Amino acid sequence: MTYKLLSRLNLPQDIKKLSLKQEEELCSELRHKIIETVSHNGGHLSSNLGTVELSVAIHKVFDSPKDKIVFDVGHQSYAHKLLTGRYADFDTLRKKGGISGFTRPSESEHDACVSGHSSNSISVALGMAEAMKLSGDEHHAIAVIGDGAMTGGLAFEGLNNAGHSGSNIIVILNYNEMSISKNIGGIATYLSELRTQDSYKKLKSNTKRILGSIPIVGGGIKSIISASKDSLKEKLLHSTIFEDFGFEFIGPIDGHSLEKLEAALRAAKSVGGPVLIQVNTVKGKGYKPAEDNPGEYHGVSSFDMMTGEKPPECQSYPDVFGDELARLAERDENIVAITAAMKYGTGLNHFRGKLKERLYDVGIAEEHAVSFAAGLALMGKIPVFSVYSSFLQRAYDELIHDISIDGLHIVLAICNAGIVGEDGETHQGIYDIPFLTTIPNVTIYSPANFDEMKLCLKKAIYEDKGLACVRFPKGGEEFGGVKDSVGAGFSLCERGSDTLIVTYGRLSGAANQASEELGCDVLRLTRIYPLQQQVIDTAKRYQRVYIFEETSRSGSIGEKLKIEVPQTTVTAIDDFVPGMKMCEALDLYGLTAEKMISKIRGDNGEA
Amino acid sequence: MTYKLLSRLNLPQDIKKLSLKQEEELCSELRHKIIETVSHNGGHLSSNLGTVELSVAIHKVFDSPKDKIVFDVGHQSYAHKLLTGRYADFDTLRKKGGISGFTRPSESEHDACVSGHSSNSISVALGMAEAMKLSGDEHHAIAVIGDGAMTGGLAFEGLNNAGHSGSNIIVILNYNEMSISKNIGGIATYLSELRTQDSYKKLKSNTKRILGSIPIVGGGIKSIISASKDSLKEKLLHSTIFEDFGFEFIGPIDGHSLEKLEAALRAAKSVGGPVLIQVNTVKGKGYKPAEDNPGEYHGVSSFDMMTGEKPPECQSYPDVFGDELARLAERDENIVAITAAMKYGTGLNHFRGKLKERLYDVGIAEEHAVSFAAGLALMGKIPVFSVYSSFLQRAYDELIHDISIDGLHIVLAICNAGIVGEDGETHQGIYDIPFLTTIPNVTIYSPANFDEMKLCLKKAIYEDKGLACVRFPKGGEEFGGVKDSVGAGFSLCERGSDTLIVTYGRLSGAANQASEELGCDVLRLTRIYPLQQQVIDTAKRYQRVYIFEETSRSGSIGEKLKIEVPQTTVTAIDDFVPGMKMCEALDLYGLTAEKMISKIRGDNGEA
Repeated sequence: MTYKLLSRLNLPQDIKKLSLKQEEELCSELRHKIIETVSHNGGHLSSNLGTVELSVAIHKVFDSPKDKIVFDVGHQSYAHKLLTGRYADFDTLRKKGGISGFTRPSESEHDACVSGHSSNSISVALGMAEAMKLSGDEHHAIAVIGDGAMTGGLAFEGLNNAGHSGSNIIVILNYNEMSISKNIGGIATYLSELRTQDSYKKLKSNTKRILGSIPIVGGGIKSIISASKDSLKEKLLHSTIFEDFGFEFIGPIDGHSLEKLEAALRAAKSVGGPVLIQVNTVKGKGYKPAEDNPGEYHGVSSFDMMTGEKPPECQSYPDVFGDELARLAERDENIVAITAAMKYGTGLNHFRGKLKERLYDVGIAEEHAVSFAAGLALMGKIPVFSVYSSFLQRAYDELIHDISIDGLHIVLAICNAGIVGEDGETHQGIYDIPFLTTIPNVTIYSPANFDEMKLCLKKAIYEDKGLACVRFPKGGEEFGGVKDSVGAGFSLCERGSDTLIVTYGRLSGAANQASEELGCDVLRLTRIYPLQQQVIDTAKRYQRVYIFEETSRSGSIGEKLKIEVPQTTVTAIDDFVPGMKMCEALDLYGLTAEKMISKIRGDNGEA
Repeated sequence: MTYKLLSRLNLPQDIKKLSLKQEEELCSELRHKIIETVSHNGGHLSSNLGTVELSVAIHKVFDSPKDKIVFDVGHQSYAHKLLTGRYADFDTLRKKGGISGFTRPSESEHDACVSGHSSNSISVALGMAEAMKLSGDEHHAIAVIGDGAMTGGLAFEGLNNAGHSGSNIIVILNYNEMSISKNIGGIATYLSELRTQDSYKKLKSNTKRILGSIPIVGGGIKSIISASKDSLKEKLLHSTIFEDFGFEFIGPIDGHSLEKLEAALRAAKSVGGPVLIQVNTVKGKGYKPAEDNPGEYHGVSSFDMMTGEKPPECQSYPDVFGDELARLAERDENIVAITAAMKYGTGLNHFRGKLKERLYDVGIAEEHAVSFAAGLALMGKIPVFSVYSSFLQRAYDELIHDISIDGLHIVLAICNAGIVGEDGETHQGIYDIPFLTTIPNVTIYSPANFDEMKLCLKKAIYEDKGLACVRFPKGGEEFGGVKDSVGAGFSLCERGSDTLIVTYGRLSGAANQASEELGCDVLRLTRIYPLQQQVIDTAKRYQRVYIFEETSRSGSIGEKLKIEVPQTTVTAIDDFVPGMKMCEALDLYGLTAEKMISKIRGDNGEA
């Protein structure tokens, strides 16, 4: 495809000059460019295809960056990126030094804020709208949020504060009937009913009054609003939750009709004050494989653009974990599994058949997941919450307050622990060790391969008390076939050296390689916290101790390992790590075998 | 007052045998006992007086501990405690080794879970109800939650999951029109309308159908439900948000009428599945000073029971902070203040008059507070979020994701940092240093007196970049009149010793006393993190370094201060600290001058 419009237009300004037909052509180009790029680089596909028209319509009606567009999660911002100066570089999507898969203000003034985690957009947009109000600026802050993200409590807190604020905040609820997995819970059911009922296609009467007096609003509006003729009819129409919260409500709008979208956005802009527009979109719109299987094309690696076929994936840690947990749960009815809207990503899709009764998908609600687990644990169940490291950050307080003060026993399966690669800053799993170790009586395992992981899981479920965590990296096994050291919690590979490498988890393979090359000893931890006296005593015997960790330095295990030896060096991560390949990041932070070797050699004066 | 019933009955079983008149007498006794005890020991008054009848009615209708009663926050559980075996020991309320001011399963099998933080009750109760369902147990889990706690996103996540669960969960919404400060936001407005509209006094028709077929439900129900005669009328009645979420809704009920409460609870019990009962109560009910000023009597120290008069309080840190921030905000219109429903506790009541426009009370919503601050900061404002240390735990993810990745500048005023005294485990401010230091580029100040605090605040607002935190203890100044060391970030008091005490904040006074007695040096930090090279270099010069910290050991400053000296000792906190006087806790953890002296002397072989 030749990108006639994308390559020639001065965007986003020129959108305002386009005819509806040209806009539609632009949408085709955007869609094609997104599919093409994601098929090479991987990324979020379904969500981005669903918001092509919406992005064009927003830029048509509003003036970014004066008007602020806040994309929730940011996994639907590709069209926006292409429309705001990043077409030429879009091939670098998710590559080192390239375009981020989420919004980043450091990348463009049109990216209003950092995104990646769910449900914060209304709050951030409200902060912007309030700041504008204080400064007498009449521009708008626009939050674009999916119905999946709406299940997060933070979104509710935002709605609660925004509805009566009187500020120029527009919330666009992008209703597509799913987050990553299918949505569940009261709000999902409610919104699903809202989607299908004509009676909601209304504005409250005061809105209509205002609209009637504004010349800019023409016939377009009428086509999207079913006017309510009298107050009785008005009353018969159940007002929406959003109106109960103080918003003017417009919708539902066909999210793939540029005309209707633009009319609705102009109406919202004219009304002033908090407005919520419900927009119905189709995830994966315009790409059949994704429309048919939006979940499978939510976040993808490279694939064949023509057929949609993906290369076979090797077995991943969550996969092996989920399979093993299901096996254990079949024999022990006390085991209960919890996911926060990520059944597939966290391996819990292995809970099938009768086991489904004991699988709880709680929506994008990590806080609730942990408090809910507390209730289950108090009744004698063994809850296993499988969650990405970076999303677990949301539940820090609940882990202290609801679980640990009372010494309740729950198990965390922490996926995507360590460097995650292309998703970048917001998704790195490098804080779970620092924040979990602040909690009294926590136990943390970091197995080095699938077999160890299964053993750690069993120990965490049946032997440990209190909060027990098993953390494993993104992707598959990189270091198989070693002697299990889960029983002792560590293993020492001795070569008679006075130099010791200490490490754990995925880095074990690199450490072994370095040790073979250098002839130094390796102390590999499987139970990384609390540190055992034997581990400390072993490390003390050396002259030089090198600790390598795929985690934030502040709060790392190396920081906690206080040993008085002539030289201790901790190699860990001090920065927020941007998106790049996993191996590139490990190299950048000195965590490959090669870098370990050159570090230790360098310190010894070798070249 | 002689507590005729409380002292003689076998509670809670005997409640079931009482006549309505006797129950009313029991309520009088409960109320008197609560006022009497709180007037001596301090504690939560208004909230506990509001739930006396509710507590009696719950224990009349349900069977604790088989039915589970989950009190949100737990600051309304005193009547429940008196009804479940703790009357004889109630004089020990909030004393060392005594009855906790919140629910603690370690104290009684009738305390279903740990409480203290807000908005988790629905989630915990749902976990229990689901566990019961899995085990074929038909008992109920009951969450008692105030309208204040309902502004927290976690409560919404709970509602969202509970409504369609089909489990035996009953949510009692204790509507009293306030949290600690007056409630704001959409949900508060909504509930306030619900309170006053007769039209909501209904059950949905299917509930009524079920009730009609259940013999246990007698005339009582009819008096609380205004029957809807036909479907048109039914439609004219706006259904509640809670029904939209899948709950059966009963209410509003007069929360001080035992008869109506019991009828409603029996109805809820009979219906099965998720039910929400709205109960209207009066905070401080039955004690005129508290009814007149419920906010002032929310959490109190001792007072004169007859007059309600309180002893004069000395100036507190939040007070001085709020006053200073208001002074700065008057000169700088970019300063914006945020509180999560604690305007008074965090000193922001000093934002008066025109400044009110720049004060945002966001409800019990710490997560939103931080994301909202991000939006303000992105527009050039300087948001100052004043918050208790233990409640800030809720916003850990947002501090990383919304603030720090983008390097946004916001200021946290962290109140109740360190030991908090009587409130115990859930309220200790001993994790903020451990979790904040895991965040790249954070700056943390721990001033030792009011003057230093003001200087730190100014530095945090105007000199630091990124996330800047000023933490101060509960209560007032204990260490005045020292030379300011904010400029350098530390100060060294030299006496020519080879022993050094390192400390910060409130412990500075004790450290100085110990140093005078022992003749050792003292290094006092005001900017405690990041550690300055000068601080490390100074500490290195000593033979023995004693670090005293009022914080959790794991993640403490002492853990981060890596110096190779012959002896380093960190005195910090390893446990969850139960409720006791502040001085008792400091003594218990070796943080008084006396304990510092004996520790250092003991190590030197002195008696």
